[in-house]
Amino acid sequence: MNLRLTRLDKLYYRLQAQHVCLNWAATEIAPMSGVVFELGLGHGRTYDHLRTRLPDREIHVFDREVDCIADCTPPDDRLWLGDVDKTLAAAQERFGGRVVLLHADLGTYEAERNEVIKEILRRRVPPLLAPGAIVLSDLPLVLEGASPLPLPDGAREGRYFLYRRSSSS
Amino acid sequence: MNLRLTRLDKLYYRLQAQHVCLNWAATEIAPMSGVVFELGLGHGRTYDHLRTRLPDREIHVFDREVDCIADCTPPDDRLWLGDVDKTLAAAQERFGGRVVLLHADLGTYEAERNEVIKEILRRRVPPLLAPGAIVLSDLPLVLEGASPLPLPDGAREGRYFLYRRSSSS
Ligand SMILES: C[S@@+](CC[C@H](N)C(=O)[O-])C[C@H]1O[C@@H](n2cnc3c(N)ncnc32)[C@H](O)[C@@H]1O
Ligand code: NI
Ligand code: NI
Repeated sequence: MNLRLTRLDKLYYRLQAQHVCLNWAATEIAPMSGVVFELGLGHGRTYDHLRTRLPDREIHVFDREVDCIADCTPPDDRLWLGDVDKTLAAAQERFGGRVVLLHADLGTYEAERNEVIKEILRRRVPPLLAPGAIVLSDLPLVLEGASPLPLPDGAREGRYFLYRRSSSS
Repeated sequence: MNLRLTRLDKLYYRLQAQHVCLNWAATEIAPMSGVVFELGLGHGRTYDHLRTRLPDREIHVFDREVDCIADCTPPDDRLWLGDVDKTLAAAQERFGGRVVLLHADLGTYEAERNEVIKEILRRRVPPLLAPGAIVLSDLPLVLEGASPLPLPDGAREGRYFLYRRSSSS
């Protein structure tokens, strides 16, 4: 049967790709030193996953607001509230070139809004990345100095997007 | 690594089990005649999945309200609005013994509310089922005349619940 993707298929494949990619990335960055950036706290699901898989890693979280399940609230000194265009600019002073994993999950159902986010990330993300850093995103991105990677086994291509900054700086 | 399940794990495993079980059930009921009951429309994801996988099947949908994505709204004459305790009682007159697949996704985060739902389903579901009917549920159920089945390959045990009514009536 070759059926159109249902609403259930789409959400399921998205979560599958997110789950597989986050687990893969957590292993991949193990030998690297640096911090993790989580863009889009939302209800806190992927933040909860990252902090559980990476208990010793400093994880900084960026969102406009805190709307997460109470037990998933990040500590104050690792929470950056405001538009990511502003907060990422501010974070660059401390963390430029030191981010080894950046997960961006800022997309919405509005195509126009997504274009704005992609443009912000295109400008703000590259200066943050350490050599060899991994970027995971719900939206396809253009990132100078980084190249797209195929998704790990178990994830369907096109349901999430994966990039690696080249190892030489 | 033996880590606690994260919020992401839980949602992902739930969707995985739902997806695998619904696809399995759609194939399983193919040779049987009768109708499908979807309890809990919600945003319409699993309803969209069922109507896509079972285009020729009469699917009746039960919810307290319509809060789904617009293009997932069921036709008026197959939508039963109100508390399932009342609407299932009403539906029994027309569909007693004629339901070949019943999917119940009514659970909440409130344990007490879930006990009420389980009790309603314990009373209302068995008289609806055709011989050999499949029941899928987000909550574990007790259904007279039906037995639990292991989940199909690809789903994790305990993330969804599957029952079959015995074939003899
Ligand atoms: C889909 S949710 C994130 C879900 C989260 N990763 C999870 O798995 O639970 C997207 C979040 O991005 C935030 N967001 C979207 N655009 C933003 C922006 N320009 N600046 C800051 N936060 C933004 C929203 O407030 C929302 O909480
Ligand atoms: Ni919310
Ligand atoms: Ni809603």
